[in-house]
Amino acid sequence: MTDLSFAKRGSKTAIETGREFSPKFDGDGLIVAVVTDYETNEVLMVGYMNAEALKRTIETGEAWYWSRSRKSFWKKGETSGQVQKVREILTDCDQDALVVKVRVEGNGATCHVGYRSCFYRAVDLSSETSVALNATNVPKVYEPEDVYGKS
Amino acid sequence: MTDLSFAKRGSKTAIETGREFSPKFDGDGLIVAVVTDYETNEVLMVGYMNAEALKRTIETGEAWYWSRSRKSFWKKGETSGQVQKVREILTDCDQDALVVKVRVEGNGATCHVGYRSCFYRAVDLSSETSVALNATNVPKVYEPEDVYGKS
Repeated sequence: MTDLSFAKRGSKTAIETGREFSPKFDGDGLIVAVVTDYETNEVLMVGYMNAEALKRTIETGEAWYWSRSRKSFWKKGETSGQVQKVREILTDCDQDALVVKVRVEGNGATCHVGYRSCFYRAVDLSSETSVALNATNVPKVYEPEDVYGKS
Repeated sequence: MTDLSFAKRGSKTAIETGREFSPKFDGDGLIVAVVTDYETNEVLMVGYMNAEALKRTIETGEAWYWSRSRKSFWKKGETSGQVQKVREILTDCDQDALVVKVRVEGNGATCHVGYRSCFYRAVDLSSETSVALNATNVPKVYEPEDVYGKS
């Protein structure tokens, strides 16, 4: 689809300090993408891209993923309007993870449950046996059935 | 090692809106952990935890990981002093990813290359063929050989 290409994996030094982008895809051909709000750095979601989704993301400036459950490409926001406009993509020392800094369009939420971020619950660190979760007290942005219909 | 336990995976509703922590480990028994600075939200690294590493992290308040390359437990900072004091752990809607908010001890860096964050390079979004990386112009915190010795 695109003319973009990634470099082959080189030496440790080249990967860690070089200027060639040689993302490491795992056994399923995927790389993890941590999506953050470009203004606040808040983590909004974690998704997975294959090489083609990553190329589409770079080329179009809007985030594409590979859905592991549906086994298909997935443009975030296609149904919900919560399109992710990409401001910056960072990679880490060994180039096996991405941080995708975005501005979210539509109602500004990312999570299909209705929150701005998918990370709306915190682990209760004082748990002694069964580990519990606590709400982080962030309000919902929307009611999912208003966007997706009743399930 | 610990008395902590995680709940079995329940219904979609229970997983998405319940108070039981039932992390989803992948085929290798791992869950992805996005580590962020608890004050700035900056993404510092991405690591992987198995159930035991996650329990140790909750119990000790210091972050433990499973090293996929070395196939062993790994307490961040054991060699470098860059111990991660855990302030908060968030999980996402389907409980298959974690955000671990930390305060970094020692010299305050996280990356073995010498930077505060492992994400010190940005993808050149204007690339038309071979995709390039640009430095993000953050200074190094330390020279790795001062901590780890010459390799």
